Amino acid sequence: MGKKIIIVGGVAGGATTAAKLRRLDENAEIIMFERGEFISFANCGLPYYIGEVIKERSKLLVQTVEGMKQRYNMDIRNFTEVTSIDREQKIITARNVQTGQEYSETYDFLILSTGAKPIVPPIEGLQSSNVFTLRNIPDMDKIKGFVEEKSPQTAVVIGGGFIGLEMAENLKEAGLSVTIAEKSPQVMGPLDPEMAGIVQNHLVEKGINLVLNNGIEKVYQNGQLVVLESGEMLESDLIILAIGVAPENNLAKAAGLELGDRGGMKVNEYLQTSDPSIYALGDAIEVKDYVNGTPAMVPLAWPANRQAHIVAHSINGRDIKYPGTMGTSIVKIFDLTAALTGNNEKTLRRLSVPFEAVHIHPLSHAGYYPGASQIAIKLLFDKETGKIFGAQAVGEDGADKRIDVIATAIKGGLTVHDLQELELAYAPPFSSAKDPVNMAGYVASNIVDGMIETVQWDEIDDIKKKGGYLLDVRTVKEFENGHIEGAINIDLDQLRERLAEIPQDKTIHINCQVGLRGYLASRILQQNGFKVKNLTGGYKTYSILNK
Amino acid sequence: MGKKIIIVGGVAGGATTAAKLRRLDENAEIIMFERGEFISFANCGLPYYIGEVIKERSKLLVQTVEGMKQRYNMDIRNFTEVTSIDREQKIITARNVQTGQEYSETYDFLILSTGAKPIVPPIEGLQSSNVFTLRNIPDMDKIKGFVEEKSPQTAVVIGGGFIGLEMAENLKEAGLSVTIAEKSPQVMGPLDPEMAGIVQNHLVEKGINLVLNNGIEKVYQNGQLVVLESGEMLESDLIILAIGVAPENNLAKAAGLELGDRGGMKVNEYLQTSDPSIYALGDAIEVKDYVNGTPAMVPLAWPANRQAHIVAHSINGRDIKYPGTMGTSIVKIFDLTAALTGNNEKTLRRLSVPFEAVHIHPLSHAGYYPGASQIAIKLLFDKETGKIFGAQAVGEDGADKRIDVIATAIKGGLTVHDLQELELAYAPPFSSAKDPVNMAGYVASNIVDGMIETVQWDEIDDIKKKGGYLLDVRTVKEFENGHIEGAINIDLDQLRERLAEIPQDKTIHINCQVGLRGYLASRILQQNGFKVKNLTGGYKTYSILNK
Ligand SMILES: Cc1cc2nc3c(=O)[nH]c(=O)nc-3n(C[C@H](O)[C@H](O)[C@H](O)COP(=O)(O)OP(=O)(O)OC[C@H]3O[C@@H](n4cnc5c(N)ncnc54)[C@H](O)[C@@H]3O)c2cc1C
Ligand SMILES: Cc1cc2nc3c(=O)[nH]c(=O)nc-3n(C[C@H](O)[C@H](O)[C@H](O)COP(=O)(O)OP(=O)(O)OC[C@H]3O[C@@H](n4cnc5c(N)ncnc54)[C@H](O)[C@@H]3O)c2cc1C
Ligand SMILES: CC(C)(COP(=O)(O)OP(=O)(O)OC[C@H]1O[C@@H](n2cnc3c(N)ncnc32)[C@H](O)[C@@H]1OP(=O)(O)O)[C@@H](O)C(=O)NCCC(=O)NCCS
Ligand SMILES: CC(C)(COP(=O)(O)OP(=O)(O)OC[C@H]1O[C@@H](n2cnc3c(N)ncnc32)[C@H](O)[C@@H]1OP(=O)(O)O)[C@@H](O)C(=O)NCCC(=O)NCCS
Repeated sequence: MGKKIIIVGGVAGGATTAAKLRRLDENAEIIMFERGEFISFANCGLPYYIGEVIKERSKLLVQTVEGMKQRYNMDIRNFTEVTSIDREQKIITARNVQTGQEYSETYDFLILSTGAKPIVPPIEGLQSSNVFTLRNIPDMDKIKGFVEEKSPQTAVVIGGGFIGLEMAENLKEAGLSVTIAEKSPQVMGPLDPEMAGIVQNHLVEKGINLVLNNGIEKVYQNGQLVVLESGEMLESDLIILAIGVAPENNLAKAAGLELGDRGGMKVNEYLQTSDPSIYALGDAIEVKDYVNGTPAMVPLAWPANRQAHIVAHSINGRDIKYPGTMGTSIVKIFDLTAALTGNNEKTLRRLSVPFEAVHIHPLSHAGYYPGASQIAIKLLFDKETGKIFGAQAVGEDGADKRIDVIATAIKGGLTVHDLQELELAYAPPFSSAKDPVNMAGYVASNIVDGMIETVQWDEIDDIKKKGGYLLDVRTVKEFENGHIEGAINIDLDQLRERLAEIPQDKTIHINCQVGLRGYLASRILQQNGFKVKNLTGGYKTYSILNK
Repeated sequence: MGKKIIIVGGVAGGATTAAKLRRLDENAEIIMFERGEFISFANCGLPYYIGEVIKERSKLLVQTVEGMKQRYNMDIRNFTEVTSIDREQKIITARNVQTGQEYSETYDFLILSTGAKPIVPPIEGLQSSNVFTLRNIPDMDKIKGFVEEKSPQTAVVIGGGFIGLEMAENLKEAGLSVTIAEKSPQVMGPLDPEMAGIVQNHLVEKGINLVLNNGIEKVYQNGQLVVLESGEMLESDLIILAIGVAPENNLAKAAGLELGDRGGMKVNEYLQTSDPSIYALGDAIEVKDYVNGTPAMVPLAWPANRQAHIVAHSINGRDIKYPGTMGTSIVKIFDLTAALTGNNEKTLRRLSVPFEAVHIHPLSHAGYYPGASQIAIKLLFDKETGKIFGAQAVGEDGADKRIDVIATAIKGGLTVHDLQELELAYAPPFSSAKDPVNMAGYVASNIVDGMIETVQWDEIDDIKKKGGYLLDVRTVKEFENGHIEGAINIDLDQLRERLAEIPQDKTIHINCQVGLRGYLASRILQQNGFKVKNLTGGYKTYSILNK
């Protein structure tokens, strides 16, 4: 008989590890425990079934207990919770949640892929029958059943993270009037505020009632009324609580496995917990941030799937290191896509890492070919070395591609100079001769190479206050359609002739629409002896949060 | 006064170099000569204006002579051909093609971005008034004018390269009955035949009359009849000649600049020709293949744009190396996208580079989310080191993204193992928890790691002939819908129980639909002592050219 391996949790991390273990070893005894009815389901699809974008529930069941048993020759015990671990004896206790029957199993290796559970804060009224969280198929069925039976008219989604946004969209599409209430000043925490601002503007355009900076205080009247911290009240036939997840760590805690500050199981590079016979992966573990090396919690499907591969190999004697998680992630919000990889500005500031940031707004493909739309891209990098820290992209089309390319570049250790050199596929329906990623590379490299200095959108107000000189080089017409208060307008195409109008003794803060003409103006002025800084992202970036 | 720089050719390479030269140096004297009326136009958009996908002609003029003069303060001389170079004296001769006036100009640096011209073979009848090539705006106007005035019903496109395919699509969409006649056995030379096969099948589905292995012999009856090498005759109200381009090298040749075998100007890493005062770039130069280091001609817009950057910097004293061209390219063919990067199998065979290839057919995004479609991906790599040589992707959605990611990986020196580790953006509308690129990495790594051996689609017939054992592990129903002749069918899910039916003394050639179940079967059989090889890409890849 081969080694006996017990897996706790039968979805992303658990089922994937189980499959790989079998591929590596026909003789291993593999037992997979899952508390719920379903294994191997598509968590990520749940919101879309509620919104009827996904029409067949069965499609969410990627594998069934029977199918997986048959194909992978393993012992799968659903409806069975693992309740304790005896590390000395290498025995777990399991309880059938339907029958209550308890029993134990020995193991050679134990794998914990127990996932994460929605955070439910101790707030009055959250136990009302119209308050839901969303983690698994039964949760989804409950919400969908409620929508069908009770025909709620108004929904409050508490939390503007990606699950909150997906639920808001799907409920809106299902015909409800939807409010998102978010305690922090922005939705989508992993984005920086100005990038989240694009998402926020889009939500509002799509008819979502967006409430920021306003947590929930209480839920009244059997859940029919949500009271916010500000005192504002919201009618709520349906409430979705989506303020984040916490690692499912009860088993680990009780067994004395080492946990991180935020409750994630601590693991080494091979994903062994503090007990080398026990591996852990997925949402329940603490990982290393790939870019900055600090501990992080990244509850996403890619890491769980990748870690499964590593755990299965390690148990079979081949050690592959898990180098940490970049946090590449993406969400669709109505017609918009928001994607990101690596570290954002907030993180870099928190860690006091010196960085530079550029904003660009290139088209998703050649402008003359129909269907092109702007992508707002923010690239964060080291001014000295050009090392890429992270990137964010928000747009209707092609944001996913650009973030995937930059994530790959980070993985390859490429710098912003190398981004210029990426030879990406170009024909008019797909890109431009200089792809947006190349363009981000060009723009960032100009900072590293000392060709230009920039100011950020959030420095402008301060510059204004201090009486700084602001020069807008767009056309008169563009200028008249809206500009930064106090800016002087000289069209780029007249700049060389009108140099005399510009003060020699002040820093000239230039802006155009997106940054390109501002850069051209900067080059002209610099070479004529002026001291200049260009507003990166131009008026476009500035006005996202300054409407 | 600054340095005096003369640029010959005012489109992709020329105009881009000019713009960058000005950004680097306000004082340089820059003169750009262009033989045609238009500078800085979108060559790549030309076919789509003919097909009325692009509706406004003016959109193709990215910059105008006036606009560019104004913005970049340069001297632009359109309608002016540079006719000779006196390298000793550093003088060029120019001729106004409208007035015939000739004059000369001195230079400190000369930049040749003269592009490439369509090849017109010495075949009888190609001078007929309904035969067109497509390179620039006037060519486009002529074809569009002809279509509008003469209302041709039938078109023959000679050549199945990307311009030929784009023209075929656009003429078809404009209502013509279209034949593509291609001399070689496949369209899209940069693809391997089985990948081109997918494109071919799609063309036929879309109602294109596709003639392969059949060059053109003669054109008769004022161009109304095309006679192919086979003797077949094709009616042709309109003929588009698109059999490739040759570098525009007359000037260079006459000036004694060194040329490569295929006529491209030879340049060093900084894009200097054999005369260090003369730089050359774009379609007119010979480059180094980035992957294999041999000379190559890659007439595409990205290289021209990138090289422009390098030339302008070099002239301004900063040397950046051009590391060669990967040949990343892409074409839309009706609903399909075909994209590729690096070397294909044909090239590797020609150079006798040992390689392995895998074929996979993953979905563009999670299968349970609507709109997913299969992408056929071929990945070529080194079996020993895992080095990536190239990749090809054909599909309705997301092929561009995967090729861009792999091109970036090649640039980062990543191996097939690293492709597994790329942390790409996943939510159901965009990808799967293991992205297709990850999957290609997993599948290829299994070969490098010795977990599996594979056979290719084009080895099967030979195996059949030699009486090899073929095992199809799909379901009975799939098997009955079509299978490789002579294959035995055992459903993967019964395999463990039916091992006794399989011969121990022969190599078992396994196939399934795309390769995944075949791989699972291989693992089971291998561990039970059988010698196995899995058909990579499965029945799906096999049947592309075996219908
Ligand atoms: C609504 C929603 C949408 C999402 N969308 C995305 C997305 O678009 N992209 C993305 O990358 N990620 C997404 N995720 C996150 C992704 O699903 C998770 O990161 C991933 O499933 C984590 O895998 P895991 O194995 O750690 O946990 P899970 O897949 O959650 O599996 C853990 C399992 O363990 C079981 N379990 C726990 N404790 C025990 C025990 N003691 N005994 C037996 N069984 C136990 C649980 O019942 C659970 O089924 C989404 C998640 C949700 C809920
Ligand atoms: C129909 C079509 C579709 C295309 N689609 C794509 C695509 O989708 N993707 C892609 O990457 N590439 C595409 N290309 C190729 C791309 O346009 C070229 O690779 C790129 O333009 C090359 O730039 P270049 O500067 O070398 O040459 P060009 O852009 O062709 O410019 C050369 C210019 O030099 C001028 N010239 C030549 N000799 C002289 C002289 N002696 N004096 C004065 N002027 C002179 C010519 O008139 C010409 O205008 C396409 C090309 C065509 C024709
Ligand atoms: C129009 C044309 C002359 C412009 O060339 P260009 O100046 O190199 O290109 P762009 O206008 O995109 O500008 C790129 C520059 O602006 C900078 N830039 C772009 N967006 C910016 C932004 N938002 N903020 C600051 N700088 C920006 C880049 O850094 C780059 O400057 P650098 O090279 O000095 O680093 C040239 O692209 C052309 O002729 N195109 C048509 C022909 C052609 O390419 N055909 C083939 C394809 S169809
Ligand atoms: C269904 C499930 C158990 C399958 O796990 P899996 O076996 O790792 O994944 P796949 O079925 O995609 O197979 C991948 C394996 O097949 C191989 N493979 C895939 N396509 C192949 C092909 N065309 N040819 C040969 N091999 C192929 C890969 O190499 C890989 O094998 P390896 O890991 O041994 O190298 C698991 O993905 C799961 O539970 N998914 C649902 C839960 C989930 O992930 N939720 C979060 C996202 S919604």
